[in-house]
Amino acid sequence: MPEYRAPLRDMRFVFDEVLDAYATLQTLPAQREFGDDLGGAILEEAAKLAENVLAPVNAIGDRQGCQYDPQNHSVKTPEGFRAAYRQFADGGWTALACPTEFGGQGLPHVLNMMVEEMTCSANLSLGMYPGLTHGAINALVAHGTPEQQQKYLPRLISGEWTGTMCLTEPQCGTDLGLIRTRAVPQADGSYAISGTKIWITGGEHDLVDNIVHLVLAKLPDAPDSVKGISLFLVPKFLDDSSRNPAFCGGLEHKMGIKGSATCVMNFEAARGWLIGEPNRGLACMFTMMNSARLMVGMQGLGIAEAAWQISLGFARERLQSRSPTGPKAPDKAADPIIVHPDVRRNLLRQKAMIEGCRALAYFTGLHEDVAHGHEEPGVRQQADDLVQLLTPVVKAFLTDEGFACANDALQVLGGSGFTQDWGIEQLVRDARITRIYEGTNGIQALDLVGRKLNLGGGRALRAYFGLIQQWLGEHADAPHAKSVARALERLQQATLWIATQGMQDAEQAAAAATPYLRLFALTSLAWMWSRMAAVASRQLAQGSSETAFYGAKLKTADFFMARLLPESESLLVEIQAGKASLMAFSDEEFAA
Amino acid sequence: MPEYRAPLRDMRFVFDEVLDAYATLQTLPAQREFGDDLGGAILEEAAKLAENVLAPVNAIGDRQGCQYDPQNHSVKTPEGFRAAYRQFADGGWTALACPTEFGGQGLPHVLNMMVEEMTCSANLSLGMYPGLTHGAINALVAHGTPEQQQKYLPRLISGEWTGTMCLTEPQCGTDLGLIRTRAVPQADGSYAISGTKIWITGGEHDLVDNIVHLVLAKLPDAPDSVKGISLFLVPKFLDDSSRNPAFCGGLEHKMGIKGSATCVMNFEAARGWLIGEPNRGLACMFTMMNSARLMVGMQGLGIAEAAWQISLGFARERLQSRSPTGPKAPDKAADPIIVHPDVRRNLLRQKAMIEGCRALAYFTGLHEDVAHGHEEPGVRQQADDLVQLLTPVVKAFLTDEGFACANDALQVLGGSGFTQDWGIEQLVRDARITRIYEGTNGIQALDLVGRKLNLGGGRALRAYFGLIQQWLGEHADAPHAKSVARALERLQQATLWIATQGMQDAEQAAAAATPYLRLFALTSLAWMWSRMAAVASRQLAQGSSETAFYGAKLKTADFFMARLLPESESLLVEIQAGKASLMAFSDEEFAA
Repeated sequence: MPEYRAPLRDMRFVFDEVLDAYATLQTLPAQREFGDDLGGAILEEAAKLAENVLAPVNAIGDRQGCQYDPQNHSVKTPEGFRAAYRQFADGGWTALACPTEFGGQGLPHVLNMMVEEMTCSANLSLGMYPGLTHGAINALVAHGTPEQQQKYLPRLISGEWTGTMCLTEPQCGTDLGLIRTRAVPQADGSYAISGTKIWITGGEHDLVDNIVHLVLAKLPDAPDSVKGISLFLVPKFLDDSSRNPAFCGGLEHKMGIKGSATCVMNFEAARGWLIGEPNRGLACMFTMMNSARLMVGMQGLGIAEAAWQISLGFARERLQSRSPTGPKAPDKAADPIIVHPDVRRNLLRQKAMIEGCRALAYFTGLHEDVAHGHEEPGVRQQADDLVQLLTPVVKAFLTDEGFACANDALQVLGGSGFTQDWGIEQLVRDARITRIYEGTNGIQALDLVGRKLNLGGGRALRAYFGLIQQWLGEHADAPHAKSVARALERLQQATLWIATQGMQDAEQAAAAATPYLRLFALTSLAWMWSRMAAVASRQLAQGSSETAFYGAKLKTADFFMARLLPESESLLVEIQAGKASLMAFSDEEFAA
Repeated sequence: MPEYRAPLRDMRFVFDEVLDAYATLQTLPAQREFGDDLGGAILEEAAKLAENVLAPVNAIGDRQGCQYDPQNHSVKTPEGFRAAYRQFADGGWTALACPTEFGGQGLPHVLNMMVEEMTCSANLSLGMYPGLTHGAINALVAHGTPEQQQKYLPRLISGEWTGTMCLTEPQCGTDLGLIRTRAVPQADGSYAISGTKIWITGGEHDLVDNIVHLVLAKLPDAPDSVKGISLFLVPKFLDDSSRNPAFCGGLEHKMGIKGSATCVMNFEAARGWLIGEPNRGLACMFTMMNSARLMVGMQGLGIAEAAWQISLGFARERLQSRSPTGPKAPDKAADPIIVHPDVRRNLLRQKAMIEGCRALAYFTGLHEDVAHGHEEPGVRQQADDLVQLLTPVVKAFLTDEGFACANDALQVLGGSGFTQDWGIEQLVRDARITRIYEGTNGIQALDLVGRKLNLGGGRALRAYFGLIQQWLGEHADAPHAKSVARALERLQQATLWIATQGMQDAEQAAAAATPYLRLFALTSLAWMWSRMAAVASRQLAQGSSETAFYGAKLKTADFFMARLLPESESLLVEIQAGKASLMAFSDEEFAA
């Protein structure tokens, strides 16, 4: 099976050269010392870990999956997972962007996203155990009492323990108001938690000694809606080392991420403690969910990168037929298939999407750091607006495209791609879930049009469009600046349509949501590609010796504008078609 | 797991009402007696078989897969496959469209395609054993000697034996000129066949007593290209019941179709007999391949239909959240998710694609019958032109959309769709191969622009466009006739672009191939939807009591035109962008 190589040069191109991220980070008090020497060294270490520790156990994780033992409700992870997780935690990777006061390293969130990309390229299943733990950490940092924080955060951050997010129940996924799990107050201030949760990632496993469940449940007197859910902390083992009755009742049999334990969890009057205020669980949940959504976007990107590397290698080596314009490798039995225009179209589609998505993701991640760490509240607010606006776009588009690119990669390999031998079919299966969890991509689109467009009365949106327009004003001669401007016009037209129609009829906005998110993403990627091309062009003009690297950036930007951006035209037409053809269908007609 | 129900009403709508297929078939001498009584009865029996015999063993086929025993080179199919195959063969389904002189029933090819759709909705893996046998049957009917035909065809047609198509070798899939398998003439007129073939569907299994391999190999003095390959018949057991050394060397471990035995076949000086003329194997291969390609299209359609049924049922029953315009099922805890515009968009995308594809496929299949069975050579030629033109479109578009629709269906189910419990994830995995085998969809697109556009100097294409224009002329007031006309204009513009540019530069045509095939398909579906809407509209005007059924057709046509056909605009832009952004990339830039 081909080996994954972390795309450090591409990552640094976006981070250092396009976003000038160190300069921005150094404006934050906590990151004043964070420079290229430290950042570069960390990325290189993360690359080694991903390549040499996580990737080698990815295929076996898929083949073996997790094994459930009903005797003692235990779950055995695949061979090698425990040792690899140990190295991950011991290397400090669970602590990277966590607060220093609880043992974290306090490094930038965007750096953590870059590490996440590599982790997920190498082994999504394994990466999910510490990944979900981060949700629990974030909730405790934001909403835990000082006592709770001191008790749990250091061991979650060090990776000694892991955490879960227990939201979904059989009757409710998207609609958390339907939750039935109950929390009954006890005399000692704790709660007795009872109910069944499903699809709990890392609900039970053998990687660590204790698991800290964050569980949404309802207090006895709670309102019957999302305003009546509260968040509770339920550890697997209590202070006296006694087993809390929070048991795994079985594992899901899934299409992919088989090395990740997806558990049914039965809480049988388990002891738990309230996190945050009663009936304010939804706010806590969103604290976990928002950063998780950006991370799911990185999962899509990471998988696409891994698949792309395999398909590019295959296309350059596989000899089959001749170029339409005559032999390109006359000394060989046939030409490598990369000579064929249609194979190149496939490869460049992957390359343009992956690199464009990477730039958009890091751009968003950098603003997350500003939103958390800048001294001025106004600057923090602006950055937070942007993160909120772009989070559903990053989550949905990077996972839709992660899956699409992995499928493109599989197609390059033909029949070989369909077999286990090359590893791509696993990447396709693993990628499929990222379009679903942490809010399906349809929900992301509704979040974008329903909540984020109106954020601060449209403030977030105006600020983002303003950023693009400002850049265009300053870079009128950048490659493809006109294409970006035209795409932005289309996006603004679509936005206006939704604002006008949606104000009168919420179904109109909802009917436009999915194509709108895609139009938003393609426009954003066009901007990113113009920015990347501008940097590449400057480097070449200044005589850089990396002519192939920068030349590739210019040509990928050309490809994006010529062959991918045109989709924005038909998306606008689809958006403006409105809800009529969707809502006209009656129940009887669907049943006919 | 939800149960599959054959969409007989929809199938008959296309066959009887839209295509008026019985009238066309009755112009053929062999089908004069074939009417609705017989056709309807056969479809109902096929539906029962698919629903009650094939579908029930589909999931177990996936879980168990095929098992290889290296001791005796044998392959065990999943539990229940043998019994189900027995019922399939005993019911005469292997013989349906085969020539009566060899025990076939001589029924229309298009009817066989309709049965294939149901077979593949129910169990693609099982359907592949008789499916591939048909390739062998077609090759023997077209190229076998009378003696060979008498010896093998009756038992292949009855399903007593099965057949294979042994083309691919490790070093060659698409490029059959690279074949290394050798055929050495023997004194008795037979040949000693030696070499290794891979990805041989049904190369070894326990469903029947004998397997007839059709093997591409090279004679000792053969030219070193596709002009040097010949076709040989190699039975597993020889006349004296001795074992021919054509052994299965192992099974592929695949993403899907796990119940289908995909074999490595080692021919160790196995005895074989030449089919057709020496060095003319490629022509024989295309005899097998062309009808196989239409059937692969039906596989994509069949899988999409099965997935669609599950997702529609789920969307109508799953209660989650409320409609954006207020509760639609106030008596329930939440509304069924089908109230949501974005869920409807997903469902209608499937419905519009599936029903449009079905119409295009039956349209093509009906012309196949005319091409084989009409008395006048000119009519046969015209029909054959159309079949040749549309075969790559049906193969590629129905499998691309089969996979896309199955993924849409999975998305409707959210997390449930990712688990084995609902069966959709298997459909997605099974569907993935259809975009690859019998010529990848990229190869189909190259076939369309490279060979089929020029068929008879453009005669086939002109005839097809002429048919659409003639229909538009006669149905100017049909629903969406103007949209069809505009789509056809775009397709003609694209065709002209390819004809002009491609004449000077073969890479230009190849660079346009994939988006051109898609534009061709979308335009064809627009025509089909306008035709379907015209029929539905007439039925409603004439007071049909099936108001929901015909109303749904009208509204699905509206949806197709409003939300799916706009893609044709951006496809045209992409086509006209040309090859520049693809071919500018150097090897160094790809490696950078």
